[in-house]
Amino acid sequence: MTNLRLATLQGGNRTIVPVDSVKIGEGFTVIAGPCTVESERQTIETAIAVRIAGAHALRGGAFKPRSSPYAFQGLGLKGLRILQKAKIETGLPIVTEVVDSRDVFWVSEYADVLQIGARNMQNFSLLKEVGRSQRPVLLKRGMNSTIEEWLNCAEYILNEGNPHVILCERGIRTFEKYTRNTLDLSSVPAIKELSHLPIIVDPSHATGRVSLIPSLSLAAVAAGADGVIVEVDINPQEALCDGEQTLTPSQFADIVRKINGLHQFMAVSQ
Amino acid sequence: MTNLRLATLQGGNRTIVPVDSVKIGEGFTVIAGPCTVESERQTIETAIAVRIAGAHALRGGAFKPRSSPYAFQGLGLKGLRILQKAKIETGLPIVTEVVDSRDVFWVSEYADVLQIGARNMQNFSLLKEVGRSQRPVLLKRGMNSTIEEWLNCAEYILNEGNPHVILCERGIRTFEKYTRNTLDLSSVPAIKELSHLPIIVDPSHATGRVSLIPSLSLAAVAAGADGVIVEVDINPQEALCDGEQTLTPSQFADIVRKINGLHQFMAVSQ
Amino acid sequence: MTNLRLATLQGGNRTIVPVDSVKIGEGFTVIAGPCTVESERQTIETAIAVRIAGAHALRGGAFKPRSSPYAFQGLGLKGLRILQKAKIETGLPIVTEVVDSRDVFWVSEYADVLQIGARNMQNFSLLKEVGRSQRPVLLKRGMNSTIEEWLNCAEYILNEGNPHVILCERGIRTFEKYTRNTLDLSSVPAIKELSHLPIIVDPSHATGRVSLIPSLSLAAVAAGADGVIVEVDINPQEALCDGEQTLTPSQFADIVRKINGLHQFMAVSQ
Amino acid sequence: MTNLRLATLQGGNRTIVPVDSVKIGEGFTVIAGPCTVESERQTIETAIAVRIAGAHALRGGAFKPRSSPYAFQGLGLKGLRILQKAKIETGLPIVTEVVDSRDVFWVSEYADVLQIGARNMQNFSLLKEVGRSQRPVLLKRGMNSTIEEWLNCAEYILNEGNPHVILCERGIRTFEKYTRNTLDLSSVPAIKELSHLPIIVDPSHATGRVSLIPSLSLAAVAAGADGVIVEVDINPQEALCDGEQTLTPSQFADIVRKINGLHQFMAVSQ
Repeated sequence: MTNLRLATLQGGNRTIVPVDSVKIGEGFTVIAGPCTVESERQTIETAIAVRIAGAHALRGGAFKPRSSPYAFQGLGLKGLRILQKAKIETGLPIVTEVVDSRDVFWVSEYADVLQIGARNMQNFSLLKEVGRSQRPVLLKRGMNSTIEEWLNCAEYILNEGNPHVILCERGIRTFEKYTRNTLDLSSVPAIKELSHLPIIVDPSHATGRVSLIPSLSLAAVAAGADGVIVEVDINPQEALCDGEQTLTPSQFADIVRKINGLHQFMAVSQ
Repeated sequence: MTNLRLATLQGGNRTIVPVDSVKIGEGFTVIAGPCTVESERQTIETAIAVRIAGAHALRGGAFKPRSSPYAFQGLGLKGLRILQKAKIETGLPIVTEVVDSRDVFWVSEYADVLQIGARNMQNFSLLKEVGRSQRPVLLKRGMNSTIEEWLNCAEYILNEGNPHVILCERGIRTFEKYTRNTLDLSSVPAIKELSHLPIIVDPSHATGRVSLIPSLSLAAVAAGADGVIVEVDINPQEALCDGEQTLTPSQFADIVRKINGLHQFMAVSQ
Repeated sequence: MTNLRLATLQGGNRTIVPVDSVKIGEGFTVIAGPCTVESERQTIETAIAVRIAGAHALRGGAFKPRSSPYAFQGLGLKGLRILQKAKIETGLPIVTEVVDSRDVFWVSEYADVLQIGARNMQNFSLLKEVGRSQRPVLLKRGMNSTIEEWLNCAEYILNEGNPHVILCERGIRTFEKYTRNTLDLSSVPAIKELSHLPIIVDPSHATGRVSLIPSLSLAAVAAGADGVIVEVDINPQEALCDGEQTLTPSQFADIVRKINGLHQFMAVSQ
Repeated sequence: MTNLRLATLQGGNRTIVPVDSVKIGEGFTVIAGPCTVESERQTIETAIAVRIAGAHALRGGAFKPRSSPYAFQGLGLKGLRILQKAKIETGLPIVTEVVDSRDVFWVSEYADVLQIGARNMQNFSLLKEVGRSQRPVLLKRGMNSTIEEWLNCAEYILNEGNPHVILCERGIRTFEKYTRNTLDLSSVPAIKELSHLPIIVDPSHATGRVSLIPSLSLAAVAAGADGVIVEVDINPQEALCDGEQTLTPSQFADIVRKINGLHQFMAVSQ
């Protein structure tokens, strides 16, 4: 890969990103939670449910980049405070998106992991700003981005001094319309041979269909991913966004059980 | 899916395609062999090697659709006769491509499974002709084809009276250039929910890189595929085509061992 | 372009393809007619209408490659005989698709130009067969094909001894869904700098929308194309296929008038 | 188009965006200049050359979003001051990119038109910020964006109170590699039927090849675009970026001459 210095695999040492007591890149990490923080009750109940089911961290959006200005844009600071309460209730560290370089400093007060969404993958000002923060960064692959461009965006963050970047494959845009995007699982072994950074997989946004998430979560484990991030809500039918790709807590619990079994098998059998 | 009748999943009964003693759709089938039949020695030695490693069928091209008219086009009938000898030596059934509707009848004398390549997926004359043959058909997904179009091509074959269609995901064309194509593993659970037909995965053509094949073969197992088809050659460096994506027999043996372990685990743990 | 020999531009001499009295590659050629030959009345009335409006050749499908086996597949020989009558009525040469290598010989009795459709662009058996015929060939670009692959398919035809290949840009498949495909007008000057073959543009299939055809036809003229091929029907609303992209005779007449004006201006102003 | 309110064409009134004495959306506007402001001499000499050749505005980047953090990132404020001098020398209004929501206020002191680059098309914070400024905005289409998403981004700007949005088609990302991107000229008539906003075309970034720019500039005129934006430099071979797609002043002068002739013809002949 041209131009990569810091993100390149050298000598076999892989980065492990510490997030409270979770170590991303060691074992298999499951991040789960609602698409958007809509209310305290929804968020905390979902957080408790995913905690019980075995999640290691809570995801949830307070700032939502939406295609239309008239779609629900998230609760902002109020949403972050709800996430904070959910953390107090469950102990789960918080993964939440930041969308503006001006917000990085104060959002970091509430977030344990700063998520850079697919639409902002090449928002270089934002990358530099999270590169200057102390928080780990979850860098989603842009829906039109090559693996090379994606690693260069990680390089922007690393180059500012933040060594804690987690890559997240979430599907690329293609002509196929049965799925919302096309999950590119080849990127998992590709990243493993190119870079020392951990990589997790988001089958929710990649497929947009609940029915495909179990199989692709297991495929992510088998492909060598370091984790998955999935949308779970106590009430997917009433979710303000992404309901058709959001798992119920019991669907999620079933997947976690299968993931853990498979990951243990893979660890032993290698 | 619009317009599908025969290919649609109905009542949960899945098609099992018998190929000699192999049953595709029951257990996990491994098909392996050279990109192209180049010589008797290369083909038979490769056939023996993949047989020992655990392959259930031998693949090998006698007719090669090549982008350029000046590239090696395959040995034709001579190649089919070599495949026939390889079958006699190893007992492995033969999977080989047919590219012209005029050839279906006589190629069927040598082939146990007629392969329709990605470039011919919507060659409807050819689909109808293999639909009238007695041989099972391995239908590769076109590199620009949606899942819906692919299933409609299976419908063309089924509609002529041939019930034995095996679908093969081999990657779609996208902007990503690290891999030769983008393997769309979402198509595996998608096909499973839409159709009763078995589906196998071709990680060789999908990725174009030997290094990515092991992880993606395991991901295919975990995603629920019924098999894989991979390129193996006793001497990949000297292969006339696709050398960079062709496994050595020992690389292949290692993958088969891991596939079998994973498939057993998956069968037990569900 | 790798592997090209015969299709490459050498010394500035451009191929002009003679079709009856029409010379494709000299001046600007307009080919028009129904998507599919449905009846004698529809075809002949449309042929007369496009003749009056200024078309130089009549297009019409007797063999239709359709995604579903249950969609109307064309009238076959009966359709070809109708086209023959339309030619007798109007004097317009006939452009019609051939989809099976076994049909090339006898379809050539009725066709003045053999069309290879987008789905068959890499049906190499068919390319070789039309390469051995005496008829000019209209080679549509595959919807997933690079310019390089397309020229290599022309090379297949030229290499069999048929020098009369007309390239046809008809849009490529992308993520954009407002248009049926994405018309790649860059291919027009690209082909002009790479090859001596004439290139025409099909805005009907590229856009799938009547409203976009006038502007893109003019853009094709300005980009340097040698012609356009458009779908026209005396009764688009009742057409069995592609009605939403089919022009009425009066819409077509208006476009031809503008095309001719623009082409004259371009010829003078260079 | 779902969710559009302000960007939608209503009653046939089209927006004309005033930029100093230039009216974008009335007549045909030519914007030209270097990819990046590298030095005072380079910028001013180029500005004078494009002015003489007939450009109506000067483009030039002071902030460059680059794939790699180690690539030249632009001169920043120093670059803006050079653009200011170029404006004083030539009278040409300045079109320059802003990449960070924090910079909008002060960059507006130097820019007559604020450009939003393709990578930032869905940087909604930045869109809102330029929506609150008094400057016209040139909104480039994201390389993976549908027309619908692009218009929704214009809606973000309009919704903040800034009515002066100019859309810019600059090619989308596809599998084709002969060109840097695939110029989607269908978007020109599509935007004209969906929206009242003016649309210009960038053949430089779309093709990445000097040789294709003349034909596609003329195609843009014929398709009904309101202008073009092209890269011109007094010394393309020494440009720090995009040299292979940058015109010399004399190539540019030749294109402007042809564009003007064609636009006059089109205006008269309709």
